[in-house]
Amino acid sequence: MKVLGIDPGTAACGFGIVHENDGRVRALASGCWTTTARERPEVRLRVIFDGVQELIALHEPDAVALEESFVGADARIALSVGQARGAALVAAATAGIECAEYAPSRVKQSVCGHGRADKGQVQRMVKMLLALDEIPPTSHEADALAVAICHALMPPLARIAAS
Amino acid sequence: MKVLGIDPGTAACGFGIVHENDGRVRALASGCWTTTARERPEVRLRVIFDGVQELIALHEPDAVALEESFVGADARIALSVGQARGAALVAAATAGIECAEYAPSRVKQSVCGHGRADKGQVQRMVKMLLALDEIPPTSHEADALAVAICHALMPPLARIAAS
Repeated sequence: MKVLGIDPGTAACGFGIVHENDGRVRALASGCWTTTARERPEVRLRVIFDGVQELIALHEPDAVALEESFVGADARIALSVGQARGAALVAAATAGIECAEYAPSRVKQSVCGHGRADKGQVQRMVKMLLALDEIPPTSHEADALAVAICHALMPPLARIAAS
Repeated sequence: MKVLGIDPGTAACGFGIVHENDGRVRALASGCWTTTARERPEVRLRVIFDGVQELIALHEPDAVALEESFVGADARIALSVGQARGAALVAAATAGIECAEYAPSRVKQSVCGHGRADKGQVQRMVKMLLALDEIPPTSHEADALAVAICHALMPPLARIAAS
């Protein structure tokens, strides 16, 4: 199965496509869309929407997986992350692709074997599991690949529960 | 000019299209999209996205206006409102229509003459300004019409500043 993982954010939105076959995963594409506060909010969100749509058209993933955003004390940040998530989710929905969400601890458990792994561990495990030459250049890209791996390697019933 | 006003929310998202001519405003359409928590998040957001796209195709508004969402203490609500805003903003952006945002106090100032008007006053003024037979049936619909009126009646330079 193919999974498009997304780490949503307005300034930087990570993406990664993972192909799973017989329990082995490899990366088909990954990267990060960035925009600046100089651009209009709706134009920034459209970068995410168009990006997700293009990846879906190109790779035809079976599912889109997002990490449940950490909702801290700052409601302004939550609003901004929410807008980016909305743009990504709508792009998946218009293509008829189901979305799944995983708590950060679940992603870490899946990729690193325990739910409290730090960012560096996640990045190194993503590199190892996908047999990449380098650690992904941004944490957004690594996080997007990690949630895609998490969904791709999830037992089928757990996968349905997350969607 | 024609303005599509939106009061974004996932469970209930208000909309209202206002036509302004020579300082007089009338409503062309208004209503409220509702979805329930039983539906998948991305499907709920698509209702908003599709709704905004259809209204834009039908009425060809010159602008989309949103009330700046009140960002209270609850980051979970902010995330959910953000997702609804993202769906609406992306629909406007894909149609190439600029979005403007107004603080709630600005909308109240514009519609009621003072920034601390209560919900009932806003609803009654929306009814009066648009010469409606009844007060809009939901506050979401009234708020969407109010922000559309606010943008439509804004002096041109202030309108640019809000977008």
